Parts: sequence; structure tokens; C-alpha cells
Amino acid sequence: MKIKRVSEFVSIKRTVENGTDEQLLAVKAIIGNVKKDGDSAIRIYTQQFDGASLESFTVTVDEMAEAYGDIDKEMVLIMQEAAENIRSYHQKQLRSSWMTTEENGTILGQKITPLDSVGVYVPGGTAAYPSSVLMNVIPAKVAGVERIVMVTPPNQNGKIPAAVLVAAHLAGVKEIYKIGGAQAIAALAYGTETIRPVDKITGPGNIFVALAKREVYGDVDIDMIAGPSEIAILADDTARANEVAADLLSQAEHDERASSVLVTTSESLAQKVAAEVAKQLAELPRKDIAVKAIADFGAIYLARDMNEAVKAVNELAPEHLEVITENPMELLGKIKHAGAIFIGRFSSEPVGDYFAGTNHVLPTNGTARFSSPLSVEDFQKKSSIIMYSEAALKENGAKIATFAREEGLEAHARAVEERLK
Amino acid sequence: MKIKRVSEFVSIKRTVENGTDEQLLAVKAIIGNVKKDGDSAIRIYTQQFDGASLESFTVTVDEMAEAYGDIDKEMVLIMQEAAENIRSYHQKQLRSSWMTTEENGTILGQKITPLDSVGVYVPGGTAAYPSSVLMNVIPAKVAGVERIVMVTPPNQNGKIPAAVLVAAHLAGVKEIYKIGGAQAIAALAYGTETIRPVDKITGPGNIFVALAKREVYGDVDIDMIAGPSEIAILADDTARANEVAADLLSQAEHDERASSVLVTTSESLAQKVAAEVAKQLAELPRKDIAVKAIADFGAIYLARDMNEAVKAVNELAPEHLEVITENPMELLGKIKHAGAIFIGRFSSEPVGDYFAGTNHVLPTNGTARFSSPLSVEDFQKKSSIIMYSEAALKENGAKIATFAREEGLEAHARAVEERLK
Repeated sequence: MKIKRVSEFVSIKRTVENGTDEQLLAVKAIIGNVKKDGDSAIRIYTQQFDGASLESFTVTVDEMAEAYGDIDKEMVLIMQEAAENIRSYHQKQLRSSWMTTEENGTILGQKITPLDSVGVYVPGGTAAYPSSVLMNVIPAKVAGVERIVMVTPPNQNGKIPAAVLVAAHLAGVKEIYKIGGAQAIAALAYGTETIRPVDKITGPGNIFVALAKREVYGDVDIDMIAGPSEIAILADDTARANEVAADLLSQAEHDERASSVLVTTSESLAQKVAAEVAKQLAELPRKDIAVKAIADFGAIYLARDMNEAVKAVNELAPEHLEVITENPMELLGKIKHAGAIFIGRFSSEPVGDYFAGTNHVLPTNGTARFSSPLSVEDFQKKSSIIMYSEAALKENGAKIATFAREEGLEAHARAVEERLK
Repeated sequence: MKIKRVSEFVSIKRTVENGTDEQLLAVKAIIGNVKKDGDSAIRIYTQQFDGASLESFTVTVDEMAEAYGDIDKEMVLIMQEAAENIRSYHQKQLRSSWMTTEENGTILGQKITPLDSVGVYVPGGTAAYPSSVLMNVIPAKVAGVERIVMVTPPNQNGKIPAAVLVAAHLAGVKEIYKIGGAQAIAALAYGTETIRPVDKITGPGNIFVALAKREVYGDVDIDMIAGPSEIAILADDTARANEVAADLLSQAEHDERASSVLVTTSESLAQKVAAEVAKQLAELPRKDIAVKAIADFGAIYLARDMNEAVKAVNELAPEHLEVITENPMELLGKIKHAGAIFIGRFSSEPVGDYFAGTNHVLPTNGTARFSSPLSVEDFQKKSSIIMYSEAALKENGAKIATFAREEGLEAHARAVEERLK
């Protein structure tokens, strides 16, 4: 890895992948056909893109039972414990509706209501990502969403990975369809004979899924469009090079466009980490991906002091930030922009990916400046409550009418005055 | 107004205005030129679209003083009181960062941080909307946003309405530029020599502003793209027809595409309201707009009973909902989808538009199914906090490594194991 001065720091901004015009046209056509032909369009696309001929997309109780048979028992217990941790953390995010009362009879407040229904997209492909199921479904469940629908593309034999099915079961999903791609997003947004539409769609996917989510946005809500993963590590000379290097590589193995950055006040750590990264890289199964990510989007930055280092981290606004310094908690107040902050040397980033209970769906590509981790609030919405008494309207009605007339809205003024006649 | 059975109810969905291809191309060109030429591009567009030749866009202290001279003193006091009400309501939305601790040393939490900077767009044109300034700026201020920038197009003489400037001052804005349209959105998103970029842009605008907000979304955050206004009134035979009619018209005067709907269990109320609407319409200054809105998007629906009526309202998911029934508070638990709920006959909708303290920026076009009123939370974001102790990692590290390997992510497993060697 290259070692540079923080003064050379330039925000590593990767453009969000917007797809080609051809991809967008293909997605628009798929959405149009699913809207028009429903299940039969889904069947054709599942044959075409996933190579699976399915009469029914619905995952049955038998398939779920089979999945439990196919998966290692230890893995079930681990997922169960992870699910409990995620549930427990997200329950602490729950807020109650609230109201305030005034002596003149005014009541103001906020009513908090879960969404009626949510669709969770789970990507297919070579690997299975049961953690993604837990992270998307559990907050919706905790929020009180009654209907949670999961969709994921089948393999050529019409199967879904056992770990994904078991994770869905542990998270409490009761409605699962073996469909993927833009056709799945269209089915969730507009419904088919089999699948009733939902109010919001979350979960990661390939470029076709991302484009489809952008297309249906407005008719339904969506979560963020995720970019490639990122880690920044803020470290001083108390950090251990082998651990820092391992954590940098844990992001680099995700994606050729993943970004791994160390910002440190210690020149000696910088050099040791550069050497360790080279050494550990050589032994990684996903070496080809990680090498490219480190070369293109990896860097070690040397800062004069911790203030300069923190400033660089805030400019980066990384998805994941590890703070491995002598007194990491002291720095927490200065850190303004990061999706998740991992404190101290034992808080390796995968702790949060899988197990601690915080959400691993996090803002990428600098959007931690204005976005938050996926949370219970993403599955609830609020209604304002306004109750004015006769006394309150008598006290304030004339002022409200004056304000409305200032804006040229006479009917607004009259609506208030109609009560005061 | 036409009276129909609720069984004939079809969701009054108006397509969101997406603009023409020509408009989108124009917006893209404007954004590109502002990015390239900065202030000088802004100057050209301000001349072209607003007819104003401005050397400097910055609103000066002198201009602010002049505005206070130009505005009615009573109006200042009313806006001041409204601002205090809005501040007080939004302060109740504030949440603290939180943490939980476990005996094994684990700490989990959420750190809440205000955005660094926000831009508020205030539309120009024939009328001035100072209430919009208060509703967008005050929540950002309460959230703790340090830099709030307001932009609004000048008239041909390079002036901004006095009421808008005074509202900005009362709300605490210190940085105001006389620019509008897509060029103002581009300047806020990407900066010019004069204007530093912001992290989020809120506020309503015409189709060019809406398209520009959509274009810059991702590089900065935006609020919702608002559709035309809506009101639904849920009423029984205790409601007074003149008041119901006046409130229906208060929305209809906004926009030819505004929607005003009464859902009632009382046939006699339905008939009286239809007659009252016709009568009051005739006397409205903005009659032409309101007549068209009522004809195209207005309706009175008769329900068999209150349950059927509430069901229809939930399907509509209106921006504003008034509940004028014998026991309106009893219905609150059944109402799931509405931007703001006005309870009882003295809570006329303009009470919330101007004065009560709740926000008037609300989800439109059925998006109350999944969206919320503008709030303090829209100007803050969260970071997850994860701290594992050595004991916690020893207890859970092997499980985390197993989970990572299940997903084929070896470097994730090794990052954890590197600490356990």
C-alpha cells in the first residue's frame, strides 16, 4: 500500500454505478411486462435469467424443513444468537407516539405507525448471504411491520441456499418467493396474481435490481442504493499492524471497488501495516479481488497529529470506521461522519457485520455525511397530531387568518374564520 | 361536488410530474454550466430567467433592515409567535445519543449528529411564502445544523419579498442568496466561488427545481419531491357543512391538481357540503383554480359506517386528514396513514399550515403510507457504536469467524482470528 501525507488526502469518491442506457431500457421493459402480464412474465424471466422453470414461486413449508436438514446445526445456533443480538439492539431504537397538552386545550404530537408491508430483496449468485436477511428483516419486524415478503433468485434447480431460508425463518419471514432481478422488484412494487404489492423495498442487489429500485421509487419507498464497501481505520502507535492489515483486507475482499484506508499518526505503524497487507494478501482465497481493491482504492495516510487525522476521517465519511488508539472513547466526540464506529482493537469490523447486533446496512461513498444505518425508523412513519380547542382557535384564529392572507390564500383565512363567526 | 358510495372509491392517484425530456435536458445543461463556470453561470441564468442583473447575490444586512421597514409590524409579531410554536414542537422531537453496556465489556449504541450544512430553497413568483421558510429552517436549526443557506429567486429589480427575508431572519438564517431555479440547486450541491456546497437541500420549487433536486440526489441528500396538496375530511353528522366546505376549499385554492375529499357516514352532511362548496366557491378570489381542482380531484364519499369510512381514508393516505366526528380521539388508533391528523372541528387545516407548530411539509400523493412530515430527524444522522472487549471477542470470535466462512468471506474470519492468536 502507498503511504502518503494526510495533506495529500483527496476524498476517494467513487462514482455511483448508474448502469448503461441498454440496462435501463431492459429494466423498464421488464417492469412494464410484469405490470402487464404478472406471474406469466415472471415465469418467462425466471427461465431466461435464472435458468429455472418454476410453476410456483412460493417457498413451501416442506422446502423450509428441507433447508433445516441441509444446514449445519452449529450454524443454526450461531444465526439464532446473531438474530437475538440484532433484535435486542434494534428494540432499543423503538420510540413511542407522544403528545403534549396545553391549558387552553391544544394537543400536539406525533403518532408512530409501522408500514403495512415490506419487501426484502436477497441477492443470489455463487455465495449465500444469510446475514443480509437478518439485517434487513429484523428491524422491520421490530418496527411492527405485519407483512414481510422476501424475494431471492433460485438456482437452475429452482433452489434457494439453505442458510438463506433458515435465516428468513429465524427472522420471522412467512412469505418467500423464488424470484430475482428487476422482475422481482416490479412484482413487489406493483403486484402479480400471486404476490400482493408492498409499500417499501429494501436489500442489496446487482445493477438491474438497483436500476429497478430507482424506477419504482415514489410508487413505493426504497432503502438506499448501496455502493461498494469501505473501511477507514484511525490508529496511533498502540495499534498492532497485523490486526490493522487484516481488517483492511476484510473490506478489500468484498469487491474490486471496495476502499480500505488507514489514517495514522505513527510512521512506524504505517510501514508495518504496508508490509503486513502485502504478506496477508498473498494468502487470501479472494486475493485477486483484494489486490485490485487495495491497488485502486487503498491508501495509508500519515497525519501530523490526531486532530489532523480525525479531520481527514470526517472528510472521508466512511461506511465503517475503526478507532484503534490509546484512548479511542475520547475521540468519539470529534468523529462526526461515519456509518458505524468500531472502538478499540477488539472491535474488528466483522463483529458488526455478523454478530454484535448493530445493522450492517450502512451509508457508503461519503453519504454518511447525511445518511444513517438501516434502522427500525426506516420501517415506521409518523403522522403529526393537531388538536385545537375552541379557546385555542379564538385566541389564535385572527393571527392565522392574517398570515394566510399575507400569502394570498384567502380560502385558508376563511376556513378559520368560518369557526369564529 | 359529486356524491358517491365509498364502494365506488378508487384511490385518487395523480402521477408525479416528471417533466418533459426538454426540461430535463435544460436542467442537466444548467447544472453542468454552474459546475464549470460557477458564479458567472449563475449571473447569466439569473439575468435570463429572473430578468435581474446582479453583481452580488448575497443578501446584505442593509437589505434585511429594509425588509423590516417594509413589513407590517403585526405580521412580524405573528411570524415570531409562529416561529416560537414551531421551535417548541420540533424541540420535542430531539433525541439523545444512547449506549448500552454489558457485563463482558460490550458497548453498543447510536451517536446522533446534526448535518454540517443545509440549503433551503424558497420559491419566488407572484406570492411570498414566509411560512415555508419557517417550516424548513427551524427543524434544521433545532437539529443543530451549523450552516443553513437560503436561496430564493429575485424579482426583476433584484429584490426578495420582505416577508420572506424577515421569516429567514426570525428562523435564524445568516446566509441568503438571491438565486433560484436549477442554477440555485446546482450551486448548493456543487458550490461556486461565492457559495460553499451543502450536504442536503430541502424546500419546494417548480418543475425545474424538482428535476434539479432529483439530478443532484446522491451527491447531496434532498427532501421529498412534493406533489400537489390534498385534504381528506372524515366526518359524521355532528360536523357543520359550512366549516367542512371551507376546509375542502382551503386546499382546492392551492393548485388545479389539489385534491379535496370528504368521507362521511351522513348523507345529509354530504348534500349540505356539496351545496356549501358551490356557494363558497363562487366568492373565492382564487375561484378559477379551486373550481378546476374540485371538478377534477374533489369528491364526497358516503360510507355505511365509520369502519368503512376509516378504511377508505387509510387507502387514500392523505397529506392532511381532518377528523370531525362525535368522538374523534377514539378513531385515532384506527387511522394508519395520513401526513397530519387534525382532530375536532376547531382544528381547521390552516391551523397546522401556519401556526400550531407542527410541520406543514407533509407526504403527498399517498406516500403517507411510508413517509413522514419534515422533522428534526431529517437534519440529523446516526452512527452505530460498537465496542467489544477482549472478553467479548473471546466469547464470540469463533462464532463470528464461522458465520463469515459460511458466506465465503475468509478475510473477515481471519480479521477476527488475528486477535485471538
